[in-house]
Formats: sequence, structure tokens, C-alpha cells
Amino acid sequence: MAIGKETIENLLKLSNPKWKTGITRVEPNRLTTRGYLQEDLIGNASFPEMVYLLIKGEMPSRNEAKMLEAVLVSFCDHGVTPPSTQVARIMASTGSPMQSCVSGGLLAFGKHHAGAIEKAMRNFQEGVKLCDGDIEPVARKIVAESLERGEKIPGFGHRYHDEDPRAPKLIDIAKKYDCTGIHTELALTIQSILLEEKGIRMNIDGANGGILSDMGFDWTVGTGIFMIGRIPAIIAHIYEEKTRETPFRKLFDIEEIYYDGEDENRIIGPSNK
Amino acid sequence: MAIGKETIENLLKLSNPKWKTGITRVEPNRLTTRGYLQEDLIGNASFPEMVYLLIKGEMPSRNEAKMLEAVLVSFCDHGVTPPSTQVARIMASTGSPMQSCVSGGLLAFGKHHAGAIEKAMRNFQEGVKLCDGDIEPVARKIVAESLERGEKIPGFGHRYHDEDPRAPKLIDIAKKYDCTGIHTELALTIQSILLEEKGIRMNIDGANGGILSDMGFDWTVGTGIFMIGRIPAIIAHIYEEKTRETPFRKLFDIEEIYYDGEDENRIIGPSNK
Amino acid sequence: MAIGKETIENLLKLSNPKWKTGITRVEPNRLTTRGYLQEDLIGNASFPEMVYLLIKGEMPSRNEAKMLEAVLVSFCDHGVTPPSTQVARIMASTGSPMQSCVSGGLLAFGKHHAGAIEKAMRNFQEGVKLCDGDIEPVARKIVAESLERGEKIPGFGHRYHDEDPRAPKLIDIAKKYDCTGIHTELALTIQSILLEEKGIRMNIDGANGGILSDMGFDWTVGTGIFMIGRIPAIIAHIYEEKTRETPFRKLFDIEEIYYDGEDENRIIGPSNK
Amino acid sequence: MAIGKETIENLLKLSNPKWKTGITRVEPNRLTTRGYLQEDLIGNASFPEMVYLLIKGEMPSRNEAKMLEAVLVSFCDHGVTPPSTQVARIMASTGSPMQSCVSGGLLAFGKHHAGAIEKAMRNFQEGVKLCDGDIEPVARKIVAESLERGEKIPGFGHRYHDEDPRAPKLIDIAKKYDCTGIHTELALTIQSILLEEKGIRMNIDGANGGILSDMGFDWTVGTGIFMIGRIPAIIAHIYEEKTRETPFRKLFDIEEIYYDGEDENRIIGPSNK
Repeated sequence: MAIGKETIENLLKLSNPKWKTGITRVEPNRLTTRGYLQEDLIGNASFPEMVYLLIKGEMPSRNEAKMLEAVLVSFCDHGVTPPSTQVARIMASTGSPMQSCVSGGLLAFGKHHAGAIEKAMRNFQEGVKLCDGDIEPVARKIVAESLERGEKIPGFGHRYHDEDPRAPKLIDIAKKYDCTGIHTELALTIQSILLEEKGIRMNIDGANGGILSDMGFDWTVGTGIFMIGRIPAIIAHIYEEKTRETPFRKLFDIEEIYYDGEDENRIIGPSNK
Repeated sequence: MAIGKETIENLLKLSNPKWKTGITRVEPNRLTTRGYLQEDLIGNASFPEMVYLLIKGEMPSRNEAKMLEAVLVSFCDHGVTPPSTQVARIMASTGSPMQSCVSGGLLAFGKHHAGAIEKAMRNFQEGVKLCDGDIEPVARKIVAESLERGEKIPGFGHRYHDEDPRAPKLIDIAKKYDCTGIHTELALTIQSILLEEKGIRMNIDGANGGILSDMGFDWTVGTGIFMIGRIPAIIAHIYEEKTRETPFRKLFDIEEIYYDGEDENRIIGPSNK
Repeated sequence: MAIGKETIENLLKLSNPKWKTGITRVEPNRLTTRGYLQEDLIGNASFPEMVYLLIKGEMPSRNEAKMLEAVLVSFCDHGVTPPSTQVARIMASTGSPMQSCVSGGLLAFGKHHAGAIEKAMRNFQEGVKLCDGDIEPVARKIVAESLERGEKIPGFGHRYHDEDPRAPKLIDIAKKYDCTGIHTELALTIQSILLEEKGIRMNIDGANGGILSDMGFDWTVGTGIFMIGRIPAIIAHIYEEKTRETPFRKLFDIEEIYYDGEDENRIIGPSNK
Repeated sequence: MAIGKETIENLLKLSNPKWKTGITRVEPNRLTTRGYLQEDLIGNASFPEMVYLLIKGEMPSRNEAKMLEAVLVSFCDHGVTPPSTQVARIMASTGSPMQSCVSGGLLAFGKHHAGAIEKAMRNFQEGVKLCDGDIEPVARKIVAESLERGEKIPGFGHRYHDEDPRAPKLIDIAKKYDCTGIHTELALTIQSILLEEKGIRMNIDGANGGILSDMGFDWTVGTGIFMIGRIPAIIAHIYEEKTRETPFRKLFDIEEIYYDGEDENRIIGPSNK
């Protein structure tokens, strides 16, 4: 009996898959995400529950869902001061499509901008592993090392705010929803030391970094959660730019640019060095 | 009396601002978004309310917030079949950072993928303007014109599903929350005609396109809302790739590539044409 | 005789390839691009020859290679005035890696910025098809239609230069290397009409659009060729930003932002509409 | 005497510039790059000379220009095996515009792909600083440390080639153009040790990393130079995909995806943990 090509192909597909995933099973007319039918999720699951379910594979508790919702809302917007928002708006002004402007904005999330949440989470998660019952020595070590290197501690201090109004609010909510644990405690202890020594307070990244760590999120998804929270505002800014400003507007005149390069009128030709 | 440089600068700043926004006012220790203090929004506003507030400038009604939540959840994931997800995972495999992988994924939202929501919304919004009391003639015109051009109607038919299970569920919820109107009606009328003539049903983009249009969203933000709903899954896939697969894995062997180019061993040199 | 799994897999690979390309054949220790061994191309082919070979599949003539080199050089830089360059530098300032900054910069190539080369090429290529021996009627039609719509003609006029110094130089070189034809002639005829009627001259995109069209490049690769020419400068700007400026610098103060949004102190809660 | 607003603005512009650059001075009808008028550069400078001039601020010697041309050509293409090329083609298939596809491709340059040139250059540049007359001890140290960590040495070994045909060709050309120095010597010494101990040879990144370091390029621009060399091929692949394949093609069937996630039919609701 001859084996048909189709049979062989199907056998090979099963024995040698290119792609493997545990997130969603796709079948004709049927989509199952993390074990739940999508038509059941729609209308029943909240958006923060979906975020938790997709990333962690399980539904959150009611309190965890409420907490994650507050975290996402807290990242909502910071006007046009973040480089990511400026970039998205400058792109919008050139007529680039929505998805290019959003992508460009997200690419401006560098280590000096939006990287703090990830670094704060990493610090807390690694710090907690060093704790032997008592948190304070670890907190003191983190502060001392950063002061020695002359570096800021990710999650503390802000270039526009002495007292970031979002941080204490997030901590209050975390207490209310019973979502604080050793990571948040470490963050608060660092704040106490920094406040006394340097007058510096926790910012939004310090608060969310502690809370998300206590909720079991790996530090490698920290920037991802920031992006989920911030993307609606980036879209709103792109829409505002496209609907309220003239296209391809000049943000400055050429007289505002200072040229400090080579004197002019050099003669062309390869160097003889 | 001499006027100080600082005074002049401040006058000029106010009279000649580079940036103007109505989304968030940033002041030291105070962030006000669309007129609401952020510390009040955190813990009180839901994520879908924030999406609505940021893009439309007003809080939604309770029903609209519930509807928008269902819309966002409906976009959650489609496994590894969408090119955007494949792209994000291939990038994750190369060791690119989270934000690059997400950005890359979003850039794969081209006119053939994820563009349908925007095009469906545009069709419905422009179609409704042509309606003179009766919707059916407009629906028939849209179907006839697309059949004539041999093109698919955005929002109808799906390459994996005959009956996209998400579409009827969304329509049910829209009815429950009283979020349907003339745009959704137009979408449903197109479906009736298409189903009879070609056996083709509405897909997720057709359902959401009608509903979002009835909620007053401009078609230019359609892809943006899809992105908000899909970004958590893209992050989940990147995380899955980075934690479960070997880095820089080969998705195929060189024997699987078919080369049909020029014969080899051509001799170098500029063409003499 | 049993057929081994490997044999079957190899048969299937050949009969059902996922990827097909005529650009480069990859074999162990052997790379053949458009029929030329890469070890022969290295050191023998010039960079512009490679650009031509990769995109068009054939080596250019000596003159065409010289012409393409001049075209690529002409796109070199325009200081920090282009949005793409600003975007790349703002990203560099946030600490984003080189490839993110370059990608972000390229994404700012929207229809109002860098899109002109493609649109100019398309206009010329479609215009030439309408020519019936005489170019002038087509040129007059293009000018008249654009004036009627109140739109600029892509490739003519510049927001910083009345007389873009690059355009006449490129035309001179094209004449020297015998690379002008009917498309360049159409561009020059449009310029004559526009100059007389509106005092507007051809810019770099008009000149290059005509020349590249006469060299047989499809208009869909126009922006691509601009990108090849501009990418070295984008890299130079990123490097300059990273080595000469402080990281995460503020490009403006919060007082320079004008907020014209909702009055503050709104009370949270879903809308009752 | 009253001072006009314009005068004050001009004074402030000069005293408080937002942007400063030494690359190009932009004036009406006049563009000066690194001290050379652009209309003089066009037609006289070669593309590799421009790359060198833009990044390093000086014209290269004739030999350096020839060497840099060979380096750029060597990066030309590797078929559809690189993730960056696959990503660009998958995006092209979805109908994304040229600049999005190119940007997406570049974003796939992660630490495991295309990062090797930068890491190789860094290794060589830091290694050379440790050299005290004799190179061999430094080479042995680099090899020993990498073997100890079980890591590959960037610039050596290739997943498709035992003997990367581009590397020896580049070294030959570097010798011919007198562009080798201590960094290339270090690269060659590492190769000797690795070849003897593990049968591993230098690849294109090792060769170019040594040569570019000897030409005085900082390691932070290594990936940038790779990008300049590779971008024409990425454009060629996007063009090939768009002109030879059907849009939105399926690269695999859903049966080829292996789902290993949660069992299905879970009941919705928040977790009670």
C-alpha cells in the first residue's frame, strides 16, 4: 500500500513542528487561549485579567486584577515631556502611518527612559534573594553601592517631580488589595534610607516595580507592562498631532541650530595621510 | 528698568510654544490628564475608561466602558499565525530587546494584516454618510462594487475561519450594552447580502468596526485600538520565545530554500550595455 | 525497500519550499549573489555596483555605476532639520541601541518627508506612459492639475531652499554620464513651466526621480535608495549625540509646553450620557 | 530705543541652542558637510568616502576608501537565512510600506544576530589596550576565558560555514591596502589558537572587526557599518517579495503549529488563590 504525500506531510508536521506555543490553540472556527474559549473571555474577562492570563498563564485573583488595573492606569501619560511621545508626534507630523508612529515611540524606550521599571524590578528581585530574614542590610547595600558609583537607583527620584504623586497612591492601593510583599517592603526601605540621606523619594517605577515583583512578574516583562499602559496615550498624542497641527511642521528654525563643525570650503579629494 | 533675560525667555515661551497639548498638563508633583488628577484616576478608573478618556477626551458611560473592554479583549491573540506575532518571535530569538520585538511586531501590521479594522471603519463611516434613511441600498452598493473589483470587503471573511466565533459574540454584547447603531446595522446588512450571495460572514474586524464607529471612534484610530488589544499577547509570545526556545534557532534548513536566480560563476565587471 | 524519514523530508523540502529567492544562493562555505561569488565581488565591485546588482539583478555599466554613486552621495545629510534625524537623535539620547535609533529614524520617512522621491518617480513613470511623442502637454497637464488641487508637485520646491544646490549638479552629472532620458526631460519641462509661472525650481527628489527612472528603477524602490544614501548620516548623528551630549537631555522645559485641554479638578466617574 | 521681539529671539537662539551639530551646516541654498560643499561632493566623492567622512569627520586616504568599500560589499547578503531578512520579507508580505519593512528588518539585529561585529570590535579594542608588546598572551586569555564560560568568541565560527569564504578575502585585501594593524593581528592570533584547539576559523565579523578597528572606527559604530552594507539587500528582498509572491501568504499551515498549553474548556472567572 502506497503512502500518500499528504499523509507523509502530516506525519512530518506533527513530528517536526517549527512553531510551538502554549498561549492560543487555533482551529477552524475555534480559538482557545490558555485553555479558555475566546468567545467566553469576550465580555467576561476584564482587560487586566487578559494581560495577566496571557503573560502568566493563569487568571489573577480579584484583588490582583484590581491591582494590575491600577498599575496599567498609572502609566497612562506624562504629556509631551517623554522622548517617546515627542518621537511619536514628530513622526505623525511627517505623515507616517499610525503603527509606524507607535513603533517609533516605543523604540525610544532606552535605558535612560522607561528602562527604570525593568531595572528596578531586577534590583528588587535580585536583592530579595540576598535577604536572610532582614531586609534593611540589603537596602543599605543597594543605596551604598549606587552612591559609591555615583549612579541613580532605578525607581527613585524623578527629573520633574520631587514627590511623584503616583507612587504613594500605588502603595496605598497595593496595601488595600493585599498585593504587597517583600519586594515592596524592600522598595519602601530603600526610600526611607534615601529620603533621610538625600531627600529622594520613590517614583512610579519604584512603586510598580515592587508591586509587580510581589505579584510574581519576572523583571524581563517590566518594560512590556509599561508599554501596555502607555500605548493608549501614544495613540492619543498621534491623533492629536494629526488632527490639530499642520503636517510637516518645523519645530525650530535653522537659526536655532548651532553648527560647530569644520570650517567651510575644504577642497575635495582623498586624504594623503 | 532693565528686563532680565529670564523674563524675556518666559515671555517668549508663552507667546511661541513649540508644543501644545490638551491631553496632560505636567507640573511639578502634579499630573492632570483630561482634567482629572492622575492620583485620582489610579485605582478609580478602569483601563478601558482610560483608553476612551485619552483618545476621546471624555469618560465613557458605564455601558460604553464595558463594551470597549470586550472589544479590547476580543483582539487578544491568534496564536503564531499572524505575521506580526511571527516577526516578534523571530526577533526575540535573535536577542533583540523587548521594545524592539514589540515595535517590529507592530510594523508588520500592513494593509493585508490588521489593516482591515481601519478600512472597515472607514467604509462604514463613509457608507453611513451616503444613507438617506434606508441602509440596504448602501450595503448593496458596497457589496456590488467589491465583487466587481474582485476584492474582499474589509471586515468580512477570514483565512482560517468560516464563522469567526468572535464576531457574533461581540454583536450580542453590543446589543446588551446598547452600543449598536447605524454603523453596526450597515455591517449586519452587508453580512446578510454576502452570506446569501457568497456564504461569507462578518469577522472580528467587521463587528468591532461597526461597534467602534457607533461609539464615535474615528476610523483613523482603528488600528490603534487593535494594537492596544493585541500588545499583551505580543509580549506574552516574546516572553515564551525567550524562555522556552533556544536563542537564534533556525526556523528552516538551507535545503528548504529554493534558489531560482542567475546561473553561477558570472565574471565580475561593469556591464557594457 | 523502506524509505528513510530523511529521504522523505528532503523530497518534501524540494517539492514544497517555503522560501524562494533569486538573490543569493547559500551553500556551506559558498555564497553566490546574482550569479557572482561573493569572494570575487569583495574588492572588485564598488558599493554602487552592488546596490544596482542587488536591486536590478544585473551589473550596471561604468557610467550607470558612477551616476548611482552621485545619487547616493547627494542624499547624504541635511543637518538636524529632517524629522528623521531629530527622531534618531532623541532616541539616541534615551540610551536606545544603534539599530533602534536607525529604525526609528527611518520610520519618520512619512508621506510629507522623504516620500517625495517615490511620488516624483511615480509621476514621471506614469506621465511618460501618457506621452505621445511630445512631452510638453504631459508636463503642462501635471502642473495644471496640481495647481488646481492646490498641492505641491513632488520633486519641486523646498522648504529651506529656493534653489536646491544639489538638483542642477545632479542634472549636470547625468548629462555627463549619459544617464538622462525621457523621464529627466519631463522633470526639466515641468521645472520650466513652474519656474515661469510660480518661480519654483526642481529639488533633489525631482532630479534624482528623473535620473533613477531613466536608469530603469521602479518607483517602488525610490524611498529605499534614499534610505541607502541617508543611513550613514543617521548613524553619524546618533554617534554625535551619544558622544557629545548628556544622556536623556531635556530639549525643552515644561514651561515651554502650552496646555489647552480640559479645566482641571474634574470628578472621576463614568459619564452619565 | 526699543528692542524688537525679533532681535531678542535671535539673540536667544544663539545663546541657548537646542541643537548643536558638527556634521552639516544648513543655510538657504547652501549645504556644507564636514566643511565640504555638497554640490562639490556629489560626483566627486565616492560613497565609501562619504561614509568615512560622515562618521569620522575626515576624508579617508585612497587605500582606506578602497578598504571600506570592500568591507561594505562584504556585508551584502546572506540569502533568506538571516532573521532580519525573513522579518523584512514577512512584513513585505503583509503590505507594510518599504520603510517599515526595512526598519523591522534592522530591529532583528539582536545580540545573537549582527551583534557579533560590535562585540568583536569591542573585544579587539579592549584586548589591544591590555597588550604590552606581545599579542599572544592576550589572545590566549580571550580564548581561555570564552572556553571557560562555554561561550563563542564573537567573530569566530559560523552556523552555516566551516570556512567563511569572506574572511580570508577581506584579510588579503586589508594587506594589499595596508589597512592591517594590531587589532587584525590580534584577530589572526585568536584564529590560530582556535583553529588548533577547536578547528574554528574567523568569520566575516572577526575579519571586519579587526580591520575597522585598525582603521580607527569605534566599536559602537560596528553594527551601523554592517547596516549600511546590508540595507541594499534588505531592500532587494522586500522588492522580490512584493513583486514575485502573493500578498499575505501563509508560511505554514495551522497543523504545523504544536500547541502544548493548558487543557481546554476552563471555566472563566477570577482565580481564588
